[in-house]
Amino acid sequence: MRIGIIGLGLIGGSLGLDLRRLGHEVWGVSRQTQTCDLALERGVADRVSLDLASLAEAEIVMLCTPLDALESTVRDLVPYLSPETLLTDVGSVKGAVVETIEPLWANFLGGHPMAGTSDQGIGAALPSLFAGAPYVLTPTPRTPVGAVERLHCLVESLGAQPIVCSPADHDRAVAWISHLPVMISSTLIGSCADEPTDRVRDLAQSLASSGFRDTSRVGGGNPELGTLMARYNRQALLDCARAYRDRLDGLISLIDSENWAAITAQLESTREARPQYLK
Amino acid sequence: MRIGIIGLGLIGGSLGLDLRRLGHEVWGVSRQTQTCDLALERGVADRVSLDLASLAEAEIVMLCTPLDALESTVRDLVPYLSPETLLTDVGSVKGAVVETIEPLWANFLGGHPMAGTSDQGIGAALPSLFAGAPYVLTPTPRTPVGAVERLHCLVESLGAQPIVCSPADHDRAVAWISHLPVMISSTLIGSCADEPTDRVRDLAQSLASSGFRDTSRVGGGNPELGTLMARYNRQALLDCARAYRDRLDGLISLIDSENWAAITAQLESTREARPQYLK
Repeated sequence: MRIGIIGLGLIGGSLGLDLRRLGHEVWGVSRQTQTCDLALERGVADRVSLDLASLAEAEIVMLCTPLDALESTVRDLVPYLSPETLLTDVGSVKGAVVETIEPLWANFLGGHPMAGTSDQGIGAALPSLFAGAPYVLTPTPRTPVGAVERLHCLVESLGAQPIVCSPADHDRAVAWISHLPVMISSTLIGSCADEPTDRVRDLAQSLASSGFRDTSRVGGGNPELGTLMARYNRQALLDCARAYRDRLDGLISLIDSENWAAITAQLESTREARPQYLK
Repeated sequence: MRIGIIGLGLIGGSLGLDLRRLGHEVWGVSRQTQTCDLALERGVADRVSLDLASLAEAEIVMLCTPLDALESTVRDLVPYLSPETLLTDVGSVKGAVVETIEPLWANFLGGHPMAGTSDQGIGAALPSLFAGAPYVLTPTPRTPVGAVERLHCLVESLGAQPIVCSPADHDRAVAWISHLPVMISSTLIGSCADEPTDRVRDLAQSLASSGFRDTSRVGGGNPELGTLMARYNRQALLDCARAYRDRLDGLISLIDSENWAAITAQLESTREARPQYLK
């Protein structure tokens, strides 16, 4: 197939590497000449352009820009497309994205490959990045049936695990397991850094080890990405964060009232629950 | 030196391995015959006993029992000791421990080796477990000067990094970097598990990956250990948890009011602060 990729960063670049290996013809579009050059050099695309018009003949176009560039990109792109062209995106939020793009292009299906590294940009692109990872597809009642079938096949060919659900279910699930962790982890770092006694703050820095390292990891990540998650998944994140805050209040009350049996029971239940999330 | 170790679990067992390698004579005490047998078999101690009286001639005795067994162990032990015997412990909380033991034995110095693995018991004991790790010593105005010097030397001989501070500073620092992370991490797992819609909870379980795995790790740990931390470090943990909760409330308000610039600024500051804790 002729597959267009707009946005040649970590995800777009990695998709390009795999899709070319699978025999597809990959046409890349970036806003930066330097990225276009690198894409050719690294074998991410068969041809590259700064111009969205270059994708007019593509059968599938994958939008791999940041969330806040999606709408303007689609508005600029659709005048060039033929109605058969299937449009998809790779954004980490689906409700707001689908609501925005669906009215602009009927043959659209939202997608979210759940893979990544801590690095960004085309320099971080890797072959087989999606192998074994979930790849969520979020059809709505308006999505053409053929769109789901075609993307399902493509996702399977990447070695990823296709998961089909509604945009709302996706957003609530990733709020729990991805967006809320960023917020609570960042809040941990911020609270420690706000310790008013210098001596204690220095000591905490000296004593921190693997427990702090792991719990704080996602809170020390890309600030722009974290903000985009919060902005585009605002309501689901707010709902989950408030439920979390209420549960934390409950735990603080148990410590305050020295209800050690109840605390042990809670810690036992979370030790039991965690493996369900590590399958 | 003749060094007694009471409680032959991960920490006591690992200390025994290193201290014997350094040429000390190590006498172990456990409440379980099976643990005594294993201690000899694994080379953790030169001799072992179920009887605290066997440590009468020890020059240093290291208390390696769980926090809630320390007081009764010291009460049972001290009738056998001579005043020169230096007593120390390895508990992860120091204020409550020092307050309890100091009146029972003047020649006491609280200690906390900041090393461990996710496994427990003598079967998990490892040589060089403490190499490169902080080992906190918490003298008070009542601690004999010689006690600090002797333990400082012993800690250095293990390859650990001695850090001397007050019991209160230790407890506040570990509340931030160890005890609070357990509580917020467990609360994350509990909140996700409480998702009312089965379909979304199942989806969250399928989509969870490294971010959730890391943020939830310490919350899925040993429930008894977590409860002991909360119980013995109650006030410091409460203070830190409330400061954390207030900060989380602030972040929730920023998301609610769509103050994206302020959220980006917060995430930037925590990205900058985190490396200070990973030295």
